[in-house]
Amino acid sequence: MYRSHTCGDLRVAHNNQEVILSGWVQGIRDKGFMIYVDLRDRYGITQLYFDEESTPKDIITKAQKLGREFVVQVKGKVVERASKNPNIPTGDIEVLVTELTVLNNAQVPPFTIEDKTDGGEDIRMKYRYLDIRRNPVKNNLIFRHKVAMEVRKFLSDGGFIEVETPYLIKSTPEGARDFVVPSRMNEGQFYALPQSPQTFKQLLMVGGMDKYFQIVKCFRDEDLRADRQPEFTQIDCEMAFVEQEDILNVFENLTKHLLKEINGVEIENFPRMTYDDAMRKYGNDKPDIRFGMEFGELNEVAQHKEFGVFNDAELVVGIAVPGAASYTRKELDALVNWVKRPQVGAKGMVYAKCNEDGSFKSTVDKFYDQDDIANWAKITGSKPGDLICVLSGDANKTRAQLSALRMELAERLNLRNPKEFAPLWVIDFPLLELDEETGHYHAMHHPFTSPKPGQLELLDTDPGAVKANAYDLVLNGNEIGGGSIRIHDKEMQATMFKHLGFTPEEAKAQFGFLMDAFQYGAPPHGGLAFGLDRLVSILGGQETIRDFIAFPKNNSGRDVMIDAPAFIDDDQLKELSLKLNIQE
Amino acid sequence: MYRSHTCGDLRVAHNNQEVILSGWVQGIRDKGFMIYVDLRDRYGITQLYFDEESTPKDIITKAQKLGREFVVQVKGKVVERASKNPNIPTGDIEVLVTELTVLNNAQVPPFTIEDKTDGGEDIRMKYRYLDIRRNPVKNNLIFRHKVAMEVRKFLSDGGFIEVETPYLIKSTPEGARDFVVPSRMNEGQFYALPQSPQTFKQLLMVGGMDKYFQIVKCFRDEDLRADRQPEFTQIDCEMAFVEQEDILNVFENLTKHLLKEINGVEIENFPRMTYDDAMRKYGNDKPDIRFGMEFGELNEVAQHKEFGVFNDAELVVGIAVPGAASYTRKELDALVNWVKRPQVGAKGMVYAKCNEDGSFKSTVDKFYDQDDIANWAKITGSKPGDLICVLSGDANKTRAQLSALRMELAERLNLRNPKEFAPLWVIDFPLLELDEETGHYHAMHHPFTSPKPGQLELLDTDPGAVKANAYDLVLNGNEIGGGSIRIHDKEMQATMFKHLGFTPEEAKAQFGFLMDAFQYGAPPHGGLAFGLDRLVSILGGQETIRDFIAFPKNNSGRDVMIDAPAFIDDDQLKELSLKLNIQE
Repeated sequence: MYRSHTCGDLRVAHNNQEVILSGWVQGIRDKGFMIYVDLRDRYGITQLYFDEESTPKDIITKAQKLGREFVVQVKGKVVERASKNPNIPTGDIEVLVTELTVLNNAQVPPFTIEDKTDGGEDIRMKYRYLDIRRNPVKNNLIFRHKVAMEVRKFLSDGGFIEVETPYLIKSTPEGARDFVVPSRMNEGQFYALPQSPQTFKQLLMVGGMDKYFQIVKCFRDEDLRADRQPEFTQIDCEMAFVEQEDILNVFENLTKHLLKEINGVEIENFPRMTYDDAMRKYGNDKPDIRFGMEFGELNEVAQHKEFGVFNDAELVVGIAVPGAASYTRKELDALVNWVKRPQVGAKGMVYAKCNEDGSFKSTVDKFYDQDDIANWAKITGSKPGDLICVLSGDANKTRAQLSALRMELAERLNLRNPKEFAPLWVIDFPLLELDEETGHYHAMHHPFTSPKPGQLELLDTDPGAVKANAYDLVLNGNEIGGGSIRIHDKEMQATMFKHLGFTPEEAKAQFGFLMDAFQYGAPPHGGLAFGLDRLVSILGGQETIRDFIAFPKNNSGRDVMIDAPAFIDDDQLKELSLKLNIQE
Repeated sequence: MYRSHTCGDLRVAHNNQEVILSGWVQGIRDKGFMIYVDLRDRYGITQLYFDEESTPKDIITKAQKLGREFVVQVKGKVVERASKNPNIPTGDIEVLVTELTVLNNAQVPPFTIEDKTDGGEDIRMKYRYLDIRRNPVKNNLIFRHKVAMEVRKFLSDGGFIEVETPYLIKSTPEGARDFVVPSRMNEGQFYALPQSPQTFKQLLMVGGMDKYFQIVKCFRDEDLRADRQPEFTQIDCEMAFVEQEDILNVFENLTKHLLKEINGVEIENFPRMTYDDAMRKYGNDKPDIRFGMEFGELNEVAQHKEFGVFNDAELVVGIAVPGAASYTRKELDALVNWVKRPQVGAKGMVYAKCNEDGSFKSTVDKFYDQDDIANWAKITGSKPGDLICVLSGDANKTRAQLSALRMELAERLNLRNPKEFAPLWVIDFPLLELDEETGHYHAMHHPFTSPKPGQLELLDTDPGAVKANAYDLVLNGNEIGGGSIRIHDKEMQATMFKHLGFTPEEAKAQFGFLMDAFQYGAPPHGGLAFGLDRLVSILGGQETIRDFIAFPKNNSGRDVMIDAPAFIDDDQLKELSLKLNIQE
């Protein structure tokens, strides 16, 4: 037996008990006549001590040779401390060691195993197993487990069945790029790793499973943006015989349950906003509504004056930045430069200070008088002390730019309180999205999403105007889930593929099995998928998903700890009927 | 709202209530003046009726056009039945339909959606979504969900943390063949799909996670034997600061919990048997101990007579087949032919009938008298009415042959009762296994398994004799789990790799990260993994894992429903820096 208790167990009630503990040496203080060792395991830290008077000499000698992160087992007696440490749960006691066994030595770790470590990101990823010993990472992984357990409990109690769908499936050119897996037994052929179990969960609905869920890994071979992982985890759900309202209710309740059980936060009802409103008010389909700074459209009051920039713009739109009237000229110049960065892409920014005395001072005082700016203030909701920031140009682009500015300023002004939770349903998404490069429409959600009733005809005349039975759940400015009511009719699915540019042959080759299935009695159905990595990180009050993944990959898709991917043997390639085709 | 109740909900207590139901048409009986429709969903079947007198004509007409598996929604009134059907929970009521909406038509399904279907395996796999509508398949999937939930609950309550390990890892030549995944972003390099999360769970132990589990998909590119799947699910577990005894206790308790919660069976303590004993008594490292038929070794009593076959044999071994003395000559000849099939490979079989009068009649009466055979009967435990079957030859091969015969006869004699559960720990497995083809030893469990204390020296002199801290959990003749205490010392791990034929460079290239990790304070640790597919099927009283997998692959690794694997575009290959290399 390696231990009678963990390093987090012992209290004054254990006083005088003989105990056995095992763990890692967190730190050693050698006072000459006394040696103190902090022994750590997953559950806590217990102070051990070795006393020149009562501890045998050979044990003292052994203790003096201990180093950080050595793995040891000790026997000893629990002793109530004279000077207690209120900062740790075991702080009322310590253990007087009578036996000491070194279970494993340790080299000096490449960074300190402390909450605030001296190790940079790269070195911590290479030695992720050491990083996991640190409380922040360890606690994130335990937190993730708790969230996943609560999700499963809630859904299972609600009659959902977790069904495992296959990982070795078929590649489809639709959507993002697939990871593929060569099949040795089927020469020249490949499986694909699923980007989501979408078609399988729909087939489970056709199969009468009624309520399905799965916490499941998904894969996308995308060029990695910051905080994207090639493999990620979804809470994937689907229900039959439901309308949008049924689905919103179930998953609103799930999210409420999590907020309550995990964060102790109770939220009545989640507000809902159409996609169009979200774009108009926040320039973003996943607005953070924890703070105001709603967009004020200024075309009516700012155009038809002598300021050409605004007159030529499709949209003139501004926000009130609370308390920012006090920004210095230097700070304001920096802000203008910030929106002009290529990542944001604005050509410039007009701003107006709302002075405490009710007057205004703008960068366009030449064209607009005090009454004009007062109108801007009214429309953007600016109060004395605020700064009005105004962008203009093409409507879509300008909204995106102002949204970026709004989020940046909210960060700077600490308006994004991670302990506050503001969920929001965004509904009525467009069915299709125009790819500006190719001029083709593609499915905004995915090709299985149903258009709103009665809008099918619009597909021929104004495809961009068709709205879908599609919805996103947004939490604190992040999309944590999204879904739709699906098409369950073979003809409508064929029509949809046609509008997405599939020939009937292509549609049949790729999704024939699904359309075939629809012929044998498909029920109305719909669903939703949460991104677990994102959900967990936001519930955990953070936004970096990598911190909630045990063994994440870096931005080149590499696992720097195990050094993968890697080259494989020629024999292995040959067995798979493959050759490398590397461009010199 | 598609339904107020499910098709399994309604009882007499709902009499006279207006309800809405949705589901599939299971069957229609048109009696002219009355039409009965059985409406089915996941939860049950409810009888609907349409009555010429009270149902509007147009609804009757619509009802007459319904076909099997149509998806319909009905409104109606619950009516207590005059003649009740005690076979279904809703059999006390029926619903008089007042509104009928056809939600989707259905073509006639390619096989009947009944518990006993007319569809063969192939067609049911192609239309697996229809097969899932059938109770036996549907219930198996729900059963699997229940087992997985109980496993998670038990382990989570016991302090285990479910940690998701990566699916895109590194290929290692050790063990079975990996599925690999070409990396587009790292030209010419490949990820591998995990055969198990073995090294990651060990790193989690190095990382102080203490108790880890994961229900996780694993992948092996093996030539598929019957009932093997290229992707399968493991309950993967690991614990730190444990000895073998700790692990056996935890997972014995888990298995007891499942047997109790899922099957209502309580089992005291699981028996334990060494690998050597299992081989000696049952010729098998996963003996089914629900029935006797233990091996009796007959060398002492059967050799040194005049029967050359036995005299030349390394081992003469027999079993008692209960009640089989009554077999006809034809049956006995068939049995002899059965053991001579190439799959079994015996050269022949000697048998002796134990007559009811206490006399014996054997195929070798020329060489053995009644007293001789009486000795065989005593050693094999044969009683009057039994048949003694005796095989001889090379010890290992003969044991395997007799084990096959024992299992075959148990099947024929219905001794393998699926409602009876006989768990067994098999312990003290050999560390290494001789590959007879290559003459090399390889790890019987895996290269991370620790030898029994004090046996390390034997590795140089008699590698095959070294026993490991390795154990299997056997249930009803199937290995449902296996594990070991791991090596946690860098030097011992290096020694082990050396004995497995790795050069130090190979060991470093493939498992350097693990051996590096061991230098930074690895705790003693060990674990176990259950095969979930197998576990679920046995708890479910069946032995075919495919029946408990939603979308299984066939013996060529194909998903015949979606038709995967498949060829991919040249562009896709090019992006991956690959070319096909197909041998003409």
